[in-house]
Amino acid sequence: MATQLMKGNHAVIAGALYAGCDCYFGYPITPASEILQDASEKFPKMGRRFVQAESEEAAANMLYGAASTGHRAMTASSGPGISLKQEAISYMAGANLPAVIVDVQRAGPGLGNIGPEQADYNQVVKGGGHGNYKCLVLAPGNVQEMCDFTMKAFDLAQKYRSPVYVLTDGVLGQMVEPLRFPEKAAEPKPDASWAVCGTAETAKNFISSIELDFDRLEKDNIALQEKYASMAAEADWEEYLAEDAELVFVAYGCCARIAKSCVDAARAEGTKAGMIRLKTLFPFPAEPLRKIAARASKPVFVAVEMSNGQMVDDVRLALDCARPVLLANRMGGNVITAGEVMAVARDAAKRIGK
Amino acid sequence: MATQLMKGNHAVIAGALYAGCDCYFGYPITPASEILQDASEKFPKMGRRFVQAESEEAAANMLYGAASTGHRAMTASSGPGISLKQEAISYMAGANLPAVIVDVQRAGPGLGNIGPEQADYNQVVKGGGHGNYKCLVLAPGNVQEMCDFTMKAFDLAQKYRSPVYVLTDGVLGQMVEPLRFPEKAAEPKPDASWAVCGTAETAKNFISSIELDFDRLEKDNIALQEKYASMAAEADWEEYLAEDAELVFVAYGCCARIAKSCVDAARAEGTKAGMIRLKTLFPFPAEPLRKIAARASKPVFVAVEMSNGQMVDDVRLALDCARPVLLANRMGGNVITAGEVMAVARDAAKRIGK
Amino acid sequence: MATQLMKGNHAVIAGALYAGCDCYFGYPITPASEILQDASEKFPKMGRRFVQAESEEAAANMLYGAASTGHRAMTASSGPGISLKQEAISYMAGANLPAVIVDVQRAGPGLGNIGPEQADYNQVVKGGGHGNYKCLVLAPGNVQEMCDFTMKAFDLAQKYRSPVYVLTDGVLGQMVEPLRFPEKAAEPKPDASWAVCGTAETAKNFISSIELDFDRLEKDNIALQEKYASMAAEADWEEYLAEDAELVFVAYGCCARIAKSCVDAARAEGTKAGMIRLKTLFPFPAEPLRKIAARASKPVFVAVEMSNGQMVDDVRLALDCARPVLLANRMGGNVITAGEVMAVARDAAKRIGK
Amino acid sequence: MATQLMKGNHAVIAGALYAGCDCYFGYPITPASEILQDASEKFPKMGRRFVQAESEEAAANMLYGAASTGHRAMTASSGPGISLKQEAISYMAGANLPAVIVDVQRAGPGLGNIGPEQADYNQVVKGGGHGNYKCLVLAPGNVQEMCDFTMKAFDLAQKYRSPVYVLTDGVLGQMVEPLRFPEKAAEPKPDASWAVCGTAETAKNFISSIELDFDRLEKDNIALQEKYASMAAEADWEEYLAEDAELVFVAYGCCARIAKSCVDAARAEGTKAGMIRLKTLFPFPAEPLRKIAARASKPVFVAVEMSNGQMVDDVRLALDCARPVLLANRMGGNVITAGEVMAVARDAAKRIGK
Repeated sequence: MATQLMKGNHAVIAGALYAGCDCYFGYPITPASEILQDASEKFPKMGRRFVQAESEEAAANMLYGAASTGHRAMTASSGPGISLKQEAISYMAGANLPAVIVDVQRAGPGLGNIGPEQADYNQVVKGGGHGNYKCLVLAPGNVQEMCDFTMKAFDLAQKYRSPVYVLTDGVLGQMVEPLRFPEKAAEPKPDASWAVCGTAETAKNFISSIELDFDRLEKDNIALQEKYASMAAEADWEEYLAEDAELVFVAYGCCARIAKSCVDAARAEGTKAGMIRLKTLFPFPAEPLRKIAARASKPVFVAVEMSNGQMVDDVRLALDCARPVLLANRMGGNVITAGEVMAVARDAAKRIGK
Repeated sequence: MATQLMKGNHAVIAGALYAGCDCYFGYPITPASEILQDASEKFPKMGRRFVQAESEEAAANMLYGAASTGHRAMTASSGPGISLKQEAISYMAGANLPAVIVDVQRAGPGLGNIGPEQADYNQVVKGGGHGNYKCLVLAPGNVQEMCDFTMKAFDLAQKYRSPVYVLTDGVLGQMVEPLRFPEKAAEPKPDASWAVCGTAETAKNFISSIELDFDRLEKDNIALQEKYASMAAEADWEEYLAEDAELVFVAYGCCARIAKSCVDAARAEGTKAGMIRLKTLFPFPAEPLRKIAARASKPVFVAVEMSNGQMVDDVRLALDCARPVLLANRMGGNVITAGEVMAVARDAAKRIGK
Repeated sequence: MATQLMKGNHAVIAGALYAGCDCYFGYPITPASEILQDASEKFPKMGRRFVQAESEEAAANMLYGAASTGHRAMTASSGPGISLKQEAISYMAGANLPAVIVDVQRAGPGLGNIGPEQADYNQVVKGGGHGNYKCLVLAPGNVQEMCDFTMKAFDLAQKYRSPVYVLTDGVLGQMVEPLRFPEKAAEPKPDASWAVCGTAETAKNFISSIELDFDRLEKDNIALQEKYASMAAEADWEEYLAEDAELVFVAYGCCARIAKSCVDAARAEGTKAGMIRLKTLFPFPAEPLRKIAARASKPVFVAVEMSNGQMVDDVRLALDCARPVLLANRMGGNVITAGEVMAVARDAAKRIGK
Repeated sequence: MATQLMKGNHAVIAGALYAGCDCYFGYPITPASEILQDASEKFPKMGRRFVQAESEEAAANMLYGAASTGHRAMTASSGPGISLKQEAISYMAGANLPAVIVDVQRAGPGLGNIGPEQADYNQVVKGGGHGNYKCLVLAPGNVQEMCDFTMKAFDLAQKYRSPVYVLTDGVLGQMVEPLRFPEKAAEPKPDASWAVCGTAETAKNFISSIELDFDRLEKDNIALQEKYASMAAEADWEEYLAEDAELVFVAYGCCARIAKSCVDAARAEGTKAGMIRLKTLFPFPAEPLRKIAARASKPVFVAVEMSNGQMVDDVRLALDCARPVLLANRMGGNVITAGEVMAVARDAAKRIGK
C-alpha cells in the first residue's frame, strides 16, 4: 500500500479521484484554493470535468446540474463562498441529490482573515439555507481522513441521495502527513436509475425541488425527515480513554488533536480525562455522550472548539443538559493551545471535586 | 390616531417609512414581492431611494453599501433569496452595520412552493452565513406588529449597529387587519458618527469586516459576542394565561395565533393551558420559560411551529431540558390547525396526568 | 450668464442636470469614472436617482428600465464597458427608447490602457450590437460642448425616441476650460405619452423589442430605417476656412483641435487648407464634404483620427470615393501631434501639385 | 468518403470535432442552441470539454481562458448573445488569441424574433467591441461549408492567433443537406509555443491585452494592423457566370443561394447576369469586384442581403464607388425571395440599358 507525504487539501482531491468523482466545479478562496488548483490539474488529465466557474453561485449550480445527471460531483470553498452556495445547497437537498461540498473553514465573520476557525458549524450543521433540510457532515481529524472522509462522503451522498459536507479548516488543509493511498479506486459511473441523463431510459425521471401542492410538498418534507432520521446509523466518533473519564473533552477536527494531548496532560495531573472525537457532526453522535454521562463517574464535559461556542449547544442537547458542559475556545484565526484548554479543564476538574 | 385596514406586507413598508428608512434594495420573490412593489411606489415619491437590483446578492450588497454610509436601509425577500444574501449579511455583521432584513418565509427546501412555513428559523436564528455572528430577530404576530416591529428593527439595528431580521411568513404577509398608524414619523437622518459619508468629518471612519491580524480579529469577535450578550435586554415575549399553566404552548408568528385559541380550547376541556408567544427569537426569551418550568405545576411544553422542529431545540436549551417539550408541526405550506395542535396537547395532557 | 472653469467629464453631468436628467446608472471605469463620481454626489442632493450598479450590463439594463418609464436617463463608460452594454443598447433601439450613453474613449483593444483614443468609432457609429439599428452620435470638441451636446443628446433622444451617444475621449474628459452655464434648466418631467409608468393612463402602452411575427418585425425595422433617414436633418458640422480649400482636414473631438492648428500651419506654408469638424457622426455630415469635393479646387482630404482609420471610411463613402482621402493617425493612447498631421498634409499637398 | 444528411447547426460541431476543437463554452439561444446541444453530447463522450456557462459573458470569458492555454476553443450564439460577448472578443483580439465564434444570426434589433437575418454584419465585420481590432469572418453558404468553414476557422485562428467568426444564419442552421465528412480528423493538441499552460516551459509566456505604456500599446496596435493586412491573402469568394456579366449580384450565406437562381432567371430574360458569392467578409474580397467593375461591360451591382443594407457599403468601398450598387433586401426574419431580388435586378437592368 503506497504511502506519501501529502497536504490535507491535496488529500481531499486524492479521495475524490479514488471515489470516482468526475466533476469538479469551484471558485478560488483561501484557504481552500489548493483543492481547486489540484483539481484543475488532475481532473482534466484523467478525462474528468473541471470548471472554474464565474462565481461561487455558478459553481454551486453547476454542481446541482451535474448531480442531477447522476455524476459524482463536488465543490470546495471557505466561509464566504459557502454562504454564497446556500441557495443551491437547499435546492439540492430538496431535490434529493448527492453532492459533496468541502468547507475549509477560515476566520470570520465577513471577510475576516485566512486563519483557521470552526465558526461555520451552525451554518453547515444547523442552518445555512432555507427550509427543512439537513446535510450529512463529516469532520476529518487528520490528512488520512481528509482523503478517506471525502471518499466516504461520495458513498454516503449516493446512498442517501443527499448533499454531504466535509467540514474541515485551514489547519488540516495545510497540514502535511503521510497518506496511505486507498486500495481501490472507483471508476466514474453515473447512477442513472433516478438521474436525468438525456437518454430514453431516464426520460421518466424528474429532478426538482418545486412542488406546488402543499400536501405533496409536506409528504416530501416528511420523507426528508425520515431520511435524516435514518442517517443516525452513520453517526461516527472515536473514544480516547473515555471509559472511566470524569472529565470528557468533546471536539472535532484539529481541536481534537489538541484535546487528545490534554487528556494525557490531565491524566498526568491526576484527573481522569478522556475524549470523544466527533467524526460526524450530523448525525451528531449523541449516544456515546449519553452513555458516558450515565456513568457513575458523573463526568464534566468540556467542548473544545475554535468558535464562539456552536458545537457546544449540540453537546448540551445530546446530554439532555444532564451534565455540565464548559467551553474552551479561541476565535479570529487563532488555534487554541493545550494550555488554554487545560485552564478550562482545571476549572472543570474543580467541579468534579478534584 | 389614524387606523386603516392593511395587508401585512404593506404594513412592513409603512413601518419602514415611519422609521425614517430611506434606502430599499430588493429583488422580487413570492410571497415577499408586495413589500418590494410597495416600496417601489412609495420610496421614490417621498424622495427616498429604491433599487430593484439585478439579483438578490446585488440587493444585499447595495444594503451593505448604504448601511456603510449611515443610512437606514432595508431589504426583504423569502427563503431562496435570504439564502443568497447570507454572504452579505455575514459581512454586515462583521462590519458592525445596521440593516433591516425582512424574511417572509415560504415553504422549502429549494423552490418548494409559495405557501407559508417557519422553516428558515435555523437559517435566520442559528446559522445562515459563515463566522461567529448573530442577528437580532423579531417575530411579529399580527399586522400591527408587522409595522411596529419593522420600526423597532431600525431602532435596534442602529442601537446595536447590527443587522436585524424581521422573521415573518406568507400568512402574516397576506393577512389584512386594521393598522393603527404610528404617532410620529422619523425623518431620514444618516448617522455619520461612525459611517463613511465621503465627507471630511467621516474620513477617519473605516467600515470593513476584514482584519488580517488574528489577535485583533479575535478581539473583534469577542466584542461581537459581548454585544450579543448585551442584546439579552431586548428579549421580548407575551404571556397568555401562563400563570398557573400545566400545559404551555410556545410559538411565534401565525402559529401563536393558533396556539392562543388552543389555550382557550384546552381550558374548556379542563386542562390548565397557557402560552408564551416569542416576540424575539434572538435573543431567545429563556427567562419566562425557565420561570414557568420552575413552578410547582410541573408544566409540559408544546412547541408549535410550521417546520420540521427548529425552534423546539431552543425551547429545550432554554429549559435546560428540565421539562418535556413536545412538537406540534406541519410543513410544505400547510398552516397548522387548532385541531392538530390540540391532538398533541392532549397527548401532553396525559403526561401531566390528566 | 455664469462661467466657471470645469473639467470635461464634469461638464457632462452639468449638461445632464440642466437637461432634466433624473436617472443615472453606471459602473466605474477610467477615464469615465469622474462622470459617475460627479453624478453620485449631485443626483441624490437634487432628489434624482443614482445607482452604481453591480456591473456594466446591470447599469445598461437599469437604463433600459428607466427609459421605459419615460424618464431622462443616462449612463457613461469607456470602451470595455461600452462593449458590455451592447446588448441593452440594441434592445433600447429596438424598443424605441430615449437614453443617453456617454463613451469616454480609452485605448484598446481589450484592456489596453487609459490613454485617449477614437477607436470605438466603428462600435458606436457602425456596429456594436446586433440587428438593424443606429444610434445618433454627437461628438463634442471642447468642454462647452461636453455640456451642450449632453443636453442636446437628451433632447434628440426624446425627439426620436432613440439611444443617443455622446462620443468623446480621455483628452476632452480631462481638459479644463471655462464653461458658460446654460441659461435655463429643464425640470425632470417624464414623458408618459408612450411610457409604461404603472398608471392607469399608461396601461395601454407597451415597450418591448420582441415581435414574433416576421412581417410586423419587418414593418418595425422599416419604421426604424425611416426614423434613421429622418435624422439626416440633425447632421451638424463646423467649417473652418473650407471655402477655397485644396486640402481639407476632416476630424472630430480632440483631433479637430489639432487639425485646426494645422489649417493655419498649412496656410502659412502656402497650402490652401481648411477643415470640416464633425459634430455628429451619425448622421454623418456628407453634404458639406460633397459640396467641397465638387468645387473646382479638386481638394484632397485628410482624415485625422486617433485610431486605425475608422471614420476615414465614412469620409470616403460620403465623397462617393470621388476624391483622395489620406489618413493621419496615432494609436495606443498617444495624441496625434500637429507635426504628424502636417507630415501627412504635405504628402497630400504634393498630390495637389504643390 | 462517408456522406450523411445533416443539419447545418450539427455540421458546425462536426467541423469543430474534426478540427481538433476540445473546448466548447456556450449559453443557449435560438436559433443557435442546437450547436450547444450537439456539443453537450459529443464533446464529453470524446473526452473533450463542454461547459454551459452561467451567462453569455461567462462563456466568452471561459473561451478567453481556454484560448490562453493554447487549446482549440469555440462558442456559438445568436445576435443578443454575440452582443454580450463583445468585451471578451475585444480582449481576445488584443491578446492575440485564437478562438472560434459562430454567430447564427436571428432577426433584431433587441429580442426581435428567431427568424433569420444578416443584420449582425456591421457588428461582426465592422464594429462590435471597442478598439482597433478586426476578426476574420467566414460566411458558409451551405451545410458542407458549415462544417468546412468551421474547420478552416480553427486553422486560421491558429495561423493568425486571432478570433475568427463563422457568420451564418437561422436558415443555414436549420437546412438539411448531405455532408461529406472530412477525410482526416485532427487530434486536440494545444499549441504551447506562446500559450500559458502552467508548465515550466510556458512560464515565460504572457497573455494579456493590457499595456500601460502608450508607445508600446501603439506598437501592439500597429502589429495588429499589419496582421490584418496580411489576412488579405485569405480573401475567398466564388464566381458564377461573372465573366461577361452586366448585372452582378453580390451576396453571402443563404442570400447567395437565392441570388444564384436569379442569375439563371435573369439570363433567361436576356440579361447577362452573374454573381460573386463572398466566402470571407473580412478580409472583404475587393479584388474580384474591382476586376469585374473594370470590364468593358460596365456592370451594375446588386447587393442582396437580409438586413437594412450593411454589406452593401463594403461593396461600394471595394468598387471605389465606381459603379452603381443597388440593394435588394428584406428584414424582420423574412427570407428574401427570388421574385423580390428580380424586381431590383430589373431596375438595375434598365440602368444598363436593357
